[in-house]
Amino acid sequence: MDLLKKKINEEGVVLSDSVLKVDSFLNHGVDPHLMDAIGEEFAGRYGEQSITKVLTIESSGIAPGLMAALKLGVPMIFARKRQSLTQSEGLITSKVYSFTKKEENTISVSGKYIHKGDKVLIIDDFLANGQAAWGLIELAEKAGAEVAGVGIVIEKSFQDGGEILRKKGFRVDSLAQIESLEAGRIRFKEVKAAEANLS
Amino acid sequence: MDLLKKKINEEGVVLSDSVLKVDSFLNHGVDPHLMDAIGEEFAGRYGEQSITKVLTIESSGIAPGLMAALKLGVPMIFARKRQSLTQSEGLITSKVYSFTKKEENTISVSGKYIHKGDKVLIIDDFLANGQAAWGLIELAEKAGAEVAGVGIVIEKSFQDGGEILRKKGFRVDSLAQIESLEAGRIRFKEVKAAEANLS
Repeated sequence: MDLLKKKINEEGVVLSDSVLKVDSFLNHGVDPHLMDAIGEEFAGRYGEQSITKVLTIESSGIAPGLMAALKLGVPMIFARKRQSLTQSEGLITSKVYSFTKKEENTISVSGKYIHKGDKVLIIDDFLANGQAAWGLIELAEKAGAEVAGVGIVIEKSFQDGGEILRKKGFRVDSLAQIESLEAGRIRFKEVKAAEANLS
Repeated sequence: MDLLKKKINEEGVVLSDSVLKVDSFLNHGVDPHLMDAIGEEFAGRYGEQSITKVLTIESSGIAPGLMAALKLGVPMIFARKRQSLTQSEGLITSKVYSFTKKEENTISVSGKYIHKGDKVLIIDDFLANGQAAWGLIELAEKAGAEVAGVGIVIEKSFQDGGEILRKKGFRVDSLAQIESLEAGRIRFKEVKAAEANLS
C-alpha cells in the first residue's frame, strides 16, 4: 500500500535493528485519513469473504480496526488487555506475551459479541513474532467463530510471526512488509503479485 | 443525539445507580456506523472553531475521537495510560484517578504532537466526575495548546464533572446526558436548546 509506505518512509523512526517507531500516525498520533485508506484497503481485500465481525486489540489496533469494520459494514470488537470492572460474565481469555513490554497479558473478549457462526477478520497494527495475532485467533476460535484472515498494518518480515501464521494455513494480509531495519534504514520487502493476496 | 439515545435505551445495561454498561457499542463492541454519526455530530458542532487536533485517551475514547478527527480533517492523538517502551522523549504527563478502576494512572502525550498554537478538541466516551477530562485538559495546557472544548459521548449528569467543567468556563458538548439510573431505569436529561451548544 503505497500511501502507507510513503508515510513510513517519511515519518517512521528506526530505534534499533528491530524497533520501528510510527507514533506520529499509528500508535499515539493517528492520521485519520490514512486509517480511512487502510480500512478501505482491508475492506477491498475481504469484501467477498462474508465477514461478520472485526476483532482487534486495544489500543493501537482500534483505529485501523474501526475503519475496516466501518467499510465492511460490520461491528468491531476490541479485546482488552486488562479486565474492566463492569465486564465479567462470559469472558473468553487468552494469554499473550509482549516482547516489547516484557510482560504477559491476559487478553479477553465477551462471548456475547463473538460466537459460533461469526466469520472474523482480525486486525492489528504490527505483526512481529505473532503473539498478539495468536492470542486473537485463540479468542475467536474459543468463541466458536471462524477466522477469515489476519489484516496487519505493518509486518516485520524479519521476525517469524507472519511466516508461521501462513504456514499454519492462515491468510495474512500485511499492508506494508518490512524486510530489514538494519543500519537505521527501512527496507520494504518486494511482494510478488501471486503471494500478495490481491485476488 | 437521537440515534445515540436510542442505542443507549436499547442496549445499555444499568448495573447500579451509577454504572451504565454500554459495551455492546462503545466500550468493547464498537458500532462503526454510530461512531461515524458521532464524529459527524462533533465536527458539526466544532467545525467553525479552527480545531487543529483531537485529543483523547485510550482505549474507549479512540473510536469516537478518530471519527471526529476524520470529519474535522485533523490528526488525533490518544493519551496513554501506561508508558510505551518506545516513547520517552518530551513526554507531558498528568495524574488521573479512576473511580471505576480504583487506581491512579499517569497519563501522557508526546510534546511533539501537541504544542503551542494548537487548538484542541478533547473527546472521551464518558464524563462522570471529570477526572479524565481534567487530566486531558492539563496535558493540552502543559503543552501550550488551547482547549476549544470537551466533547463527550455520554455524560452522567448526576455526577458533578460536567457542571464543574462548565462553571470553570469550558465548553462541554455531551451527545447524551443521563440524569438518573435509579431503579434500573435510564432517564435522559432534557436539554434546553439554549444550553445545548448547538450554535
